[in-house]
Amino acid sequence: MERTESTQDTTAFNMPDWMQIQFADQKREFNKRPTKIGRRSLSRSISQSSTDSYSSDSSDDETSPRDKQQKNSKGSSDFCVKNIKQAEFGRREIEIAEQEMPALMALRKRAQGEKPLAGAKIVGCTHITAQTAVLIETLGALGAQCRWAACNIYSTLNEVAAALAESGVPVFSWKGESEDDFWWCIDRCVNVEGWQPNMILDDGGDLTHWIYKKYPNMFKKIKGIVEESVTGVHRLYQLSKAGKLCVPAMNVNDSVTKQKFDNLYCCRESILDGLKRTTDMMFGGKQVVVCGYGEVGKGCCAALKAMGSIVYVTEIDPICALQACMDGFRLVKLNEVIRQVDIVITCTGNKNVVTREHLDRMKNGCIVCNMGHSNTEIDVASLRTPELTWERVRSQVDHVIWPDGKRIVLLAEGRLLNLSCSTVPTFVLSITATTQALALIELYNAPEGRYKQDVYLLPKKMDEYVASLHLPTFDAHLTELSDEQAKYLGLNKNGPFKPNYYRY
Amino acid sequence: MERTESTQDTTAFNMPDWMQIQFADQKREFNKRPTKIGRRSLSRSISQSSTDSYSSDSSDDETSPRDKQQKNSKGSSDFCVKNIKQAEFGRREIEIAEQEMPALMALRKRAQGEKPLAGAKIVGCTHITAQTAVLIETLGALGAQCRWAACNIYSTLNEVAAALAESGVPVFSWKGESEDDFWWCIDRCVNVEGWQPNMILDDGGDLTHWIYKKYPNMFKKIKGIVEESVTGVHRLYQLSKAGKLCVPAMNVNDSVTKQKFDNLYCCRESILDGLKRTTDMMFGGKQVVVCGYGEVGKGCCAALKAMGSIVYVTEIDPICALQACMDGFRLVKLNEVIRQVDIVITCTGNKNVVTREHLDRMKNGCIVCNMGHSNTEIDVASLRTPELTWERVRSQVDHVIWPDGKRIVLLAEGRLLNLSCSTVPTFVLSITATTQALALIELYNAPEGRYKQDVYLLPKKMDEYVASLHLPTFDAHLTELSDEQAKYLGLNKNGPFKPNYYRY
Amino acid sequence: MERTESTQDTTAFNMPDWMQIQFADQKREFNKRPTKIGRRSLSRSISQSSTDSYSSDSSDDETSPRDKQQKNSKGSSDFCVKNIKQAEFGRREIEIAEQEMPALMALRKRAQGEKPLAGAKIVGCTHITAQTAVLIETLGALGAQCRWAACNIYSTLNEVAAALAESGVPVFSWKGESEDDFWWCIDRCVNVEGWQPNMILDDGGDLTHWIYKKYPNMFKKIKGIVEESVTGVHRLYQLSKAGKLCVPAMNVNDSVTKQKFDNLYCCRESILDGLKRTTDMMFGGKQVVVCGYGEVGKGCCAALKAMGSIVYVTEIDPICALQACMDGFRLVKLNEVIRQVDIVITCTGNKNVVTREHLDRMKNGCIVCNMGHSNTEIDVASLRTPELTWERVRSQVDHVIWPDGKRIVLLAEGRLLNLSCSTVPTFVLSITATTQALALIELYNAPEGRYKQDVYLLPKKMDEYVASLHLPTFDAHLTELSDEQAKYLGLNKNGPFKPNYYRY
Amino acid sequence: MERTESTQDTTAFNMPDWMQIQFADQKREFNKRPTKIGRRSLSRSISQSSTDSYSSDSSDDETSPRDKQQKNSKGSSDFCVKNIKQAEFGRREIEIAEQEMPALMALRKRAQGEKPLAGAKIVGCTHITAQTAVLIETLGALGAQCRWAACNIYSTLNEVAAALAESGVPVFSWKGESEDDFWWCIDRCVNVEGWQPNMILDDGGDLTHWIYKKYPNMFKKIKGIVEESVTGVHRLYQLSKAGKLCVPAMNVNDSVTKQKFDNLYCCRESILDGLKRTTDMMFGGKQVVVCGYGEVGKGCCAALKAMGSIVYVTEIDPICALQACMDGFRLVKLNEVIRQVDIVITCTGNKNVVTREHLDRMKNGCIVCNMGHSNTEIDVASLRTPELTWERVRSQVDHVIWPDGKRIVLLAEGRLLNLSCSTVPTFVLSITATTQALALIELYNAPEGRYKQDVYLLPKKMDEYVASLHLPTFDAHLTELSDEQAKYLGLNKNGPFKPNYYRY
Repeated sequence: MERTESTQDTTAFNMPDWMQIQFADQKREFNKRPTKIGRRSLSRSISQSSTDSYSSDSSDDETSPRDKQQKNSKGSSDFCVKNIKQAEFGRREIEIAEQEMPALMALRKRAQGEKPLAGAKIVGCTHITAQTAVLIETLGALGAQCRWAACNIYSTLNEVAAALAESGVPVFSWKGESEDDFWWCIDRCVNVEGWQPNMILDDGGDLTHWIYKKYPNMFKKIKGIVEESVTGVHRLYQLSKAGKLCVPAMNVNDSVTKQKFDNLYCCRESILDGLKRTTDMMFGGKQVVVCGYGEVGKGCCAALKAMGSIVYVTEIDPICALQACMDGFRLVKLNEVIRQVDIVITCTGNKNVVTREHLDRMKNGCIVCNMGHSNTEIDVASLRTPELTWERVRSQVDHVIWPDGKRIVLLAEGRLLNLSCSTVPTFVLSITATTQALALIELYNAPEGRYKQDVYLLPKKMDEYVASLHLPTFDAHLTELSDEQAKYLGLNKNGPFKPNYYRY
Repeated sequence: MERTESTQDTTAFNMPDWMQIQFADQKREFNKRPTKIGRRSLSRSISQSSTDSYSSDSSDDETSPRDKQQKNSKGSSDFCVKNIKQAEFGRREIEIAEQEMPALMALRKRAQGEKPLAGAKIVGCTHITAQTAVLIETLGALGAQCRWAACNIYSTLNEVAAALAESGVPVFSWKGESEDDFWWCIDRCVNVEGWQPNMILDDGGDLTHWIYKKYPNMFKKIKGIVEESVTGVHRLYQLSKAGKLCVPAMNVNDSVTKQKFDNLYCCRESILDGLKRTTDMMFGGKQVVVCGYGEVGKGCCAALKAMGSIVYVTEIDPICALQACMDGFRLVKLNEVIRQVDIVITCTGNKNVVTREHLDRMKNGCIVCNMGHSNTEIDVASLRTPELTWERVRSQVDHVIWPDGKRIVLLAEGRLLNLSCSTVPTFVLSITATTQALALIELYNAPEGRYKQDVYLLPKKMDEYVASLHLPTFDAHLTELSDEQAKYLGLNKNGPFKPNYYRY
Repeated sequence: MERTESTQDTTAFNMPDWMQIQFADQKREFNKRPTKIGRRSLSRSISQSSTDSYSSDSSDDETSPRDKQQKNSKGSSDFCVKNIKQAEFGRREIEIAEQEMPALMALRKRAQGEKPLAGAKIVGCTHITAQTAVLIETLGALGAQCRWAACNIYSTLNEVAAALAESGVPVFSWKGESEDDFWWCIDRCVNVEGWQPNMILDDGGDLTHWIYKKYPNMFKKIKGIVEESVTGVHRLYQLSKAGKLCVPAMNVNDSVTKQKFDNLYCCRESILDGLKRTTDMMFGGKQVVVCGYGEVGKGCCAALKAMGSIVYVTEIDPICALQACMDGFRLVKLNEVIRQVDIVITCTGNKNVVTREHLDRMKNGCIVCNMGHSNTEIDVASLRTPELTWERVRSQVDHVIWPDGKRIVLLAEGRLLNLSCSTVPTFVLSITATTQALALIELYNAPEGRYKQDVYLLPKKMDEYVASLHLPTFDAHLTELSDEQAKYLGLNKNGPFKPNYYRY
Repeated sequence: MERTESTQDTTAFNMPDWMQIQFADQKREFNKRPTKIGRRSLSRSISQSSTDSYSSDSSDDETSPRDKQQKNSKGSSDFCVKNIKQAEFGRREIEIAEQEMPALMALRKRAQGEKPLAGAKIVGCTHITAQTAVLIETLGALGAQCRWAACNIYSTLNEVAAALAESGVPVFSWKGESEDDFWWCIDRCVNVEGWQPNMILDDGGDLTHWIYKKYPNMFKKIKGIVEESVTGVHRLYQLSKAGKLCVPAMNVNDSVTKQKFDNLYCCRESILDGLKRTTDMMFGGKQVVVCGYGEVGKGCCAALKAMGSIVYVTEIDPICALQACMDGFRLVKLNEVIRQVDIVITCTGNKNVVTREHLDRMKNGCIVCNMGHSNTEIDVASLRTPELTWERVRSQVDHVIWPDGKRIVLLAEGRLLNLSCSTVPTFVLSITATTQALALIELYNAPEGRYKQDVYLLPKKMDEYVASLHLPTFDAHLTELSDEQAKYLGLNKNGPFKPNYYRY
């Protein structure tokens, strides 16, 4: 896979050593893995409301879940969550999410007749949120048995985990687990008597990695891996290149529909949301420079232009640069406008795009944020020097103060603004979850030989199917080809309608 | 090549019999080849002004150029044009075009040191316009010898042909030549004593075809073919599939930059222009349905939405359909809105998208036009029935009148609106011409073995180079990667910056 | 009337001496009255098609209509037109116009019951076009007797005049009449035995002026004047100020609906149309400066921004300037950007906004045009100097060439671009014509004392009525207030809904 | 003043009995005065951060400020605030606000030479926020002595009040004061020995009312009242109509600049912000109906259209309706689309625009909110019936659940969304505060006789001055008229540039 797009996800290039497929990489600090979170951030809905409702309840219970004895109402204790009693509240959140994930619900309906995942034993490792719960329960409805752990030590919504456990899903995760807990939970998912997974759904590659290290024999029964994150996909490509990938893997991160939503459509809205929630600024008349005119940059530019900002663009790629021109943006080098702009937004997938030198030249009050990837685009480290004062003025908002009193407003300490300071709509997560479900179905049902020990993109046709499952949300009516037209175009009436590389 | 995009160019696929590589296909009617013209229409600038200036002059001279004795001022008579005396006027047009084709002029400048086409003997067959003249003279400046014929019997601008002949280019073409003249001119280009072409620049494939039929041995010396049109590219792929392609060929039609300009950017402007020039209608508040949401459809929709029209979209591809939804257009089936819309625009690459049944249900005054391809998208033939009256109300505008008095306004008889009723800006033609020049340079200079007897896309890096040559027009300043950044991204500092399939 | 808006119509302020209400002003050159035409330019539809059809017919008949004996089919010879035989063709044009003027047709329908203009004897002096014909015949349907002359010696469409004459309207006008003919025609309208006008519909004030000078006693029977043009309204205000206005007059030029359409909506479309038709330029990426951010400027800026141009604005009024900022345009002084822009557009209502000094500093190929008013905004006179060469490259397009070869592209010699180089949609003319009809009805039926010898704006309620008559075109459904809501708002359920000054 | 615009502020029409100028109206419930707050909501910046920092501090101090003995560092105790020790934190907030209120800071600079408010004794009653503090201290810098109370029992930021008290401003207010406290604070402002106000700055009319009731003689010395709120302005017009207004009053609510920012520009941003913060919804592809196409509606529609929503509009006024059409929105009656839309937004200034019948027909998940005025636009009361269940899912977000399980998402219980669920940028408040300052200067310095005992709008020229003071924020450069141009336009070079009624 060539990977140079300036999207939010093109992280982890040349990711250094930790991918060396050795246990050592588990030593990394968990709370410093911004890349890994990638686009898979959490919808606010439950986190906030649940915090409101249960904060007292949760905070005063300091016993580790590993040390607790809990049973669900059916008597099972094959799970480990913060507090099984929170199940009811979590169930309500799941029900609300179901309303906004019509594609998965449609899959469930179709599954009433056939069970495409009958016999599937899926072990999963993802963020555990209401949206994930809808996915897991959909997989169950399609015939699969699932066991689940969290892919991030902070992102589990305890109430949702409780609801899953209550409904019989063996889930092992809680918010704020330690690194040791993290691997213990994963191990509890796979290391079970009388149960061996035959499918893996991973997000970041940790689960896959663990099985590789600890239970390599398990791969004999595994039919495939579905991986969603940039990081995890990168690990898979490395394995593949090294000839060590021993089952087919599906890269769902790069499916067209998911990319368009993760980058263009989602960022078009979240750039406005993230800036408003953190700074309450007015967009009208503001001068903004957007670094990078890939899909993320295009979304940011379009939104800000529509709100009356004056937008400049920087680019390294002449084709994207020409697009910026044709779309009505002045293409500049950052240096040319750095003194005059009110906002600097990075969307490059690159590093050190905004340097200390740039920061030194910005005007008082300039807002700096990152919509691109990781936390490398702005050289935040260069601001940790004695002559500069940092003042935390609000959650996720720092004033960095120069000796002459100039203040730069740094958002989310240079991490992804939209993940830190805004929320991802359930609809976007629905597209991802549907893509994951279809990838699992495809890999599980593929005839012998269709997939080898390699990394695959979701077939175009299934990508189109994901899209079609989301059209009813918009009351959108697709036109069907007549036989004559299909023949004229040389197409199958049911698609795929475009070549695989089509991404306009 | 997979071919299902709903762009303006996806014509002629499955084109039935005429590609049988037999002389018979030359019998087709020349003025019924709308596909062949494709996007390569002519800028109005010269056609109109020259017509104004010379119409009397041209019309009263009925002698065939083949029967005339003409010499240019240097005494050469190795050309055949309408009237060599028109050279001065043609030269002015070429000079004006030069001002708007900065990329070719930049190539000329670089050619002062090196001559990348030194030794090249190029035979060309394209529309003969001021823009083409700038290309031909640029090829000359790069070191090539050129001989040229027209690819269309109507499109030659006589004054430009005269100016080329006067400056020493052997050019054989005039406006309104007969079919017999057409092939005679081509033959005069290649059938010369003491000169054999080693490069072909073709537009439609007729020149290539002629050499295949008449002088197959010439291919021994030919290093490559550069083909620009959809039709010609299709013919080449057919030859390749049949194992009959005996030199490398470059498909410049599908280069990214060209496609973006031909489809998205150009149509965004020409849909407005074409509708205004033909109907003087007001866009604000009008209800419009656009069939097809590929690049052409996206351009049309964006422009009309911006002008205050209410736009509906039809699509067969769920991914494009979802994009239409996210961009703010109601996705409908044509039947749902056909009674209420003021304008119907086809952009599908398909056939019979607008049927007689649809036409019967449209409201009085509804405007119908085609921005897609060919003349098949609207079933115009179905309107040639006795009960309907056709009234030509203006050039390119017909009222088709139903027995009850209802009038449908049909533009350009269902042929491409933007080719028939608006003009193509020189800037778009500049991108095409630059792409052609670079493709010639690449094929001519490629080391042995880089290209086999197959059809190739322009290398990504050259596509990027075409784009970069057009940035100065916008006073656009490209950012360069630092060494550190290039390493981080795993890129060469000079590109290519994206994978080949990248088309966002 | 306070008059400082930078709209297209704010012409002629401080108009010097010719308004001195003396016969002398008739000596002015008729073809140099760009202001007078104002926004009421002609739809192209008939002019072009009729030219096509009848050019030979018309051109070979050199007899002055004043010297011809013509009768219509009913035997009447109370008219004077170019050629009564062209009536049939003109009738078709009128019928086409009727289709796009639904408001007048709606008025005709309502008139089947009551005849609000029964007894009205209207003398009119306007452009004579298909749209005017629809107005005149509507006035007839409402009960009025009309006699008509042209307000401009060039603008009469002979076929339409013939059709009116054939249907029994005494019309006196032809295209290309002399100045002497002009006044003779007006005189023939008013100087009739046994018929005296009681209403005047004027466009420019010439008819009113003629009656003042020649038949002042006629005003005893005249109930009112309806005047549409900026110039004519100005003359009326001068008369009023001088105490010489002896009947009520209605200024229909400044009604809200008309202004919005004449300025914002119409210019939003015609700026693109005018630039394309004259220069075939591409808008994407072009740098444009728009001088003036009134309604006209707002329309131009919005359209160009939507097409991907980069737009700068100049303003003198800080409130409009702040709006430009909030709408996303850099507010600059012309000097700051004059060297870099590709297009300069004036929309100020002012004079010498673009000076020779600015023109000297523009870059090669810069396009300069006027969308504001008159021909004073660009100091064109300053370009008539020996060192500059003018080259007419196309109708309405001049290249002005500096000694160093730099070319400035001047459109329409600095006159209004949209009047010279694009057309006015019938829909805009429909709003004007409906406003005129309602103003006539209002003045004719107003109870004694409602209007004094002064200049009035159309009552808000009638302005709203004009708007409501045009809503069906868009299939638009107005909401009605409930009794409770009307009471809550303190409004009459039928309007007016806004205070008189409301213009947002 | 005619007041029927459908803006956010057109509240209080036919406001019933409480304006009877009797003490009784003080009995109204304070927390039910949504109208009064109007647009003057609070920037979040301080409220949130201060809450974060001081919540513990504030909450454990239950002593009423009236019972405390506090002195500032200079020994003065002529104030009553929650806790004088919070001054330092409040000062920082004021300093941050100063950075975003450049116009007031510019006024301070000019005041170094002249003191236009020297001798002024201003009593003020407004929200007490950082932005107000900047205003108060600016008035001080201009020469005035000020005493201040709060116009709302909840809106005082205690830290800011402390900072003002510390710097010597006698301020009487705290957050959460009782109704009795409210009037006690106002009385402490005006009932002072040896000090009598000669100017009033009011926001809601309570202060004015109190003086009328208690100290009518004070009006002998008072030069004028500046009132900002719709409610207060309404009370003044009532007083004026009743002949009881005994000093000039300036209505700053209706100045052009303020209206544009309060309605069009601010709502364009806050509709997106308010919806995102409450629902995390995605805008792309959503169907939205906006009731009312005044300035607020225009802003909402433009923003949502730009974000890819499909927007329908309802209107009662045909002129605004026609504008909606021309801007590209389908004009419908609410009933036509109520079943299909995802969001309903009211912007009418009317009552019961969304009725129970509409609510019954909405689809599951439909979001309903009010951007217009007050809390009357949606008939929320009709939802308080036994068969419907209310569920508070988040702050300001209720699910109203029908017996069949359908949920309607009601925001802010039908009160103004942007006041309840988003924040007002400081820049908007800066425009208001500057307008207030200039109005005070104008009234205080006006020559005898310029203003009578009536309600006035801010002179156009001062409105323009407010705008010009805000242009530097955008680095915007105003063009100046030349003498020749000013003469041509008949304008003073320094303005005013437009007639008073100009509001485009």
